[in-house]
Amino acid sequence: MTDAPMTAQAATTATAGDILSSHLTAQAGAFLRALPLAVGEAGARPGAAPSAGTADLLRAVRRIGGLLHTFGATFEQTWAQESRTELRWLLNLLALEPGYVRKAARLLGALDALSGSEADGPGMLAGHAGVPKARALLDRQLTLARTRAHTTVLQELRSARLHALADRMTLLVAEAPLLDAAEGRAGAVLLPQAAAAFTALTASARQLPLHRASTPYGGDGLRRLGAVPQARGAVDADAALAADDAPWLRVRILVKRARYALEVCGRPAHELDELDGVLGRHQEASDAAVTAATAARTPRITPATAYVLGVVHADQRLEVEAARYAFGHRWPELPPGLDAWLEIPPAEGWGPTPAPRMA
Amino acid sequence: MTDAPMTAQAATTATAGDILSSHLTAQAGAFLRALPLAVGEAGARPGAAPSAGTADLLRAVRRIGGLLHTFGATFEQTWAQESRTELRWLLNLLALEPGYVRKAARLLGALDALSGSEADGPGMLAGHAGVPKARALLDRQLTLARTRAHTTVLQELRSARLHALADRMTLLVAEAPLLDAAEGRAGAVLLPQAAAAFTALTASARQLPLHRASTPYGGDGLRRLGAVPQARGAVDADAALAADDAPWLRVRILVKRARYALEVCGRPAHELDELDGVLGRHQEASDAAVTAATAARTPRITPATAYVLGVVHADQRLEVEAARYAFGHRWPELPPGLDAWLEIPPAEGWGPTPAPRMA
Repeated sequence: MTDAPMTAQAATTATAGDILSSHLTAQAGAFLRALPLAVGEAGARPGAAPSAGTADLLRAVRRIGGLLHTFGATFEQTWAQESRTELRWLLNLLALEPGYVRKAARLLGALDALSGSEADGPGMLAGHAGVPKARALLDRQLTLARTRAHTTVLQELRSARLHALADRMTLLVAEAPLLDAAEGRAGAVLLPQAAAAFTALTASARQLPLHRASTPYGGDGLRRLGAVPQARGAVDADAALAADDAPWLRVRILVKRARYALEVCGRPAHELDELDGVLGRHQEASDAAVTAATAARTPRITPATAYVLGVVHADQRLEVEAARYAFGHRWPELPPGLDAWLEIPPAEGWGPTPAPRMA
Repeated sequence: MTDAPMTAQAATTATAGDILSSHLTAQAGAFLRALPLAVGEAGARPGAAPSAGTADLLRAVRRIGGLLHTFGATFEQTWAQESRTELRWLLNLLALEPGYVRKAARLLGALDALSGSEADGPGMLAGHAGVPKARALLDRQLTLARTRAHTTVLQELRSARLHALADRMTLLVAEAPLLDAAEGRAGAVLLPQAAAAFTALTASARQLPLHRASTPYGGDGLRRLGAVPQARGAVDADAALAADDAPWLRVRILVKRARYALEVCGRPAHELDELDGVLGRHQEASDAAVTAATAARTPRITPATAYVLGVVHADQRLEVEAARYAFGHRWPELPPGLDAWLEIPPAEGWGPTPAPRMA
């Protein structure tokens, strides 16, 4: 990440192509260093928590994909499109197993907090007969899903598709297929494209029911899922919940793109880091809620187990609501567009920023 | 309530006994007017919602009881104690049936909101197979409980015990058994006793986890019931929840006493009205949560029914948490003792205030 620092001098005279190439070289290098580690880890640890190699690989994949999307006009179109498709495939693949690990930690942690084996005192499920049964059910289902995901990942990590993507990244370290437009000055070429990423984010965030979400205990996560027309017309709870959460998940993608665009512009992105974190919590709680609801439909479970899963489902929807509240309170403090962000002078000029705190 | 207005002139020269007698006469009169209505209503409507007569009776009972408690030092001790015991008996009796009516409205309303038959769009239980079953179960259990309560109330309203209490109230209209102390000036005798009611309220409220409650989504109602030592040591959820809610229910009683003391002092009590309302919501949600949890333990229910009741239980505990949040946000704005309340000059001097907005 920091292997291509640029002086302020170089930064002011740099072309858009210089900046993008420098970023892509750094990230593609990180990709190629992390890939064998991730493959080795996947082979060595059936069932263990995914570790550094996979995390580094995910970080590089997200940044390259974001860069190719936001500054897409500067690249050869077909190549950029194909690269993004392949990167998204790898992203989904790699995110699968860590997703189940986090989901298990969240759901079993919620059960522990609700039943009160933690230091803060008992919860509303303390001593309930359904707790150990629900815990065993969730643990079994999530372990099974994770094992299946692991097998898929192992298979795909040996596939020709991954080898082709690695070759693509090797070429990228040497030279990115830039268009003539990339020869323009960095500020003139890149700023309008970065600004478009912020415009998309602001427009999407404006569609969120932020006013309602910033009122605590508004019942957003549990009761009133009617903010989105699709949710209002949904026939069942699964569809309504999915439609209600969708715009928030979309905003998270746009926050990430804006973050990576700021990194390319050499600006600090702490506020966006935090928003990304809040929306990450939203997404994990939303996913965990679906898992609890699905587990409650397992045939032949006891009423006590189902009751506990109902409490866990509501608890996770409450977490969804809490994350929306946190987002609603942070968002209006942020400048509405890129301009305000750019008022902060770049720390190192254009070029890669120091390694961010979060993936 | 307003049948004994006093001029400001009379107020400044009034003795404590004048003030208390005037209040007690008015409230005992209201009691005696409402009693036959309440008895008639109870006989005429098996299962109908309790109406004006019962509500008026409850209002008078609460105020006489509160007055006898707060200004107890001014009355003949044995008589005041006995009267309070009998009034509390009637209060519990009368509150029984309206309690079940409100509980049914709250729980079935919550189910409707959660399943989304309301205008705000679907909820997280929309279309769930367990909803109609859980609705029928709650409806059946609460109707049965209400019918039983009704039978008890009908019986007791014809009892010798109630006749004796009515006689006691008739005597009160004529003359309250006051001690010599009541001959002192109103301000000198009543203010210290009213101040003690506020001191008790402030001391109890200070024991509440207000700091935590004023942080939204802190998990107070669902997860962390450890604010009270009794809750931390509880062996099961029912005991833990009851211990966790107890100090809040206690503060509600003290808020009511302080309200009625302010009324005797002729001061507006709007802030206390609101706090009483917030804590009333707390209590109703807490009671409803217990009902949902108990219903979920009904033998031979389906897992789908139990799951829905788990969601409703969590939803009501969330309402408990929301009420604590609302209280925590209002409380610090209030003056800590009676002094600040008394800075507001009495509207009508000492004496009954205009009819309050709430029971």
